[in-house]
Amino acid sequence: MDLLEPFSTRVDLREGLLGNGVHRLSRRISDMRGMFQDEQAWAEIAAQGDPLVYEVFVAPAPESEGHLCHGVTVLHPGRVGDEYFMTKGHYHQKSGTAEVYYGLRGNGLMMLQTRWGIWRTVDIAPGTVVYVPPHWGHRSINTADEPLVLLFAYPGDAGHDYGTIESSGFARLIVARNGRPTLVENPSYTAEDPG
Amino acid sequence: MDLLEPFSTRVDLREGLLGNGVHRLSRRISDMRGMFQDEQAWAEIAAQGDPLVYEVFVAPAPESEGHLCHGVTVLHPGRVGDEYFMTKGHYHQKSGTAEVYYGLRGNGLMMLQTRWGIWRTVDIAPGTVVYVPPHWGHRSINTADEPLVLLFAYPGDAGHDYGTIESSGFARLIVARNGRPTLVENPSYTAEDPG
Repeated sequence: MDLLEPFSTRVDLREGLLGNGVHRLSRRISDMRGMFQDEQAWAEIAAQGDPLVYEVFVAPAPESEGHLCHGVTVLHPGRVGDEYFMTKGHYHQKSGTAEVYYGLRGNGLMMLQTRWGIWRTVDIAPGTVVYVPPHWGHRSINTADEPLVLLFAYPGDAGHDYGTIESSGFARLIVARNGRPTLVENPSYTAEDPG
Repeated sequence: MDLLEPFSTRVDLREGLLGNGVHRLSRRISDMRGMFQDEQAWAEIAAQGDPLVYEVFVAPAPESEGHLCHGVTVLHPGRVGDEYFMTKGHYHQKSGTAEVYYGLRGNGLMMLQTRWGIWRTVDIAPGTVVYVPPHWGHRSINTADEPLVLLFAYPGDAGHDYGTIESSGFARLIVARNGRPTLVENPSYTAEDPG
């Protein structure tokens, strides 16, 4: 029996996850080609400073069955055209696995979608616990002027499928209209054929 | 395929989990017979007011594979003799499953133990993320003067084994010595035979 030592990490609302926390990835505007609707605005921002969109910090839990991968996402404020900064979004490779998010700082929402185009949104504020049930792809969106900081946990064997959303997008976009977050149809979206 | 609707709950540092949150259980002193070392002090407190020791609030996630059970524990401050208020503690029935705790309010520690008597402690404060790896029994202990409030998440099919700790206890107790939390040997503890 493989016995892993217990450990702790420490959330920091600016720095992510301290202590045993590890910086897993940074995504800049240039890393998100094709994910925002306004391609000209995207190209200009990528050329002029290429700001960070989000960072992910993880605790050193194994990515295997029975374990719980967990960490912190720091999603910076900003827009590309009228579309708010967001994460790439993903399904789990092992589709029947859930994820829990906890709002630590900022305001935004979680966009959720099935492979057949059913979609939902859930508002996130400090203290909100969002349950992403199995089979729902999901993306975080920062609709405020400060970082959206989220704690997350998912089964160690869940895995990530980023490709589906990179190629098909979400059915709805979250854009600023009269300064307020508003849902609009995504003209580029194509649902998978339920077969 | 069973498709569950996404949902959210809301942490409240006094009330537990609001919105879709459900009050799962309350444990009073009288519910914890035999778990504190000082049986006379226990009997007096049980007879005089029988205060709440802890409450558990859960979100309505299914208790089955792929899901993540999650919720909030509110562990009240207090002592029985010189031993701090604590949860009963449990192993997972499906032993190879982990749990994540997040410190929301208060100060205390997590006591962890294997079935063969290896034990560890991890300090908890607001912002601390504790990883309980597979195979570790665990109990929360409130060493401060306000509630210790923790968010938790574990695999839906983990299950709870309270009996092992009810019968054998933990190898160490956390008691007040000169007003400070101190580890002492538990004279009643008996490890399982590793076979």
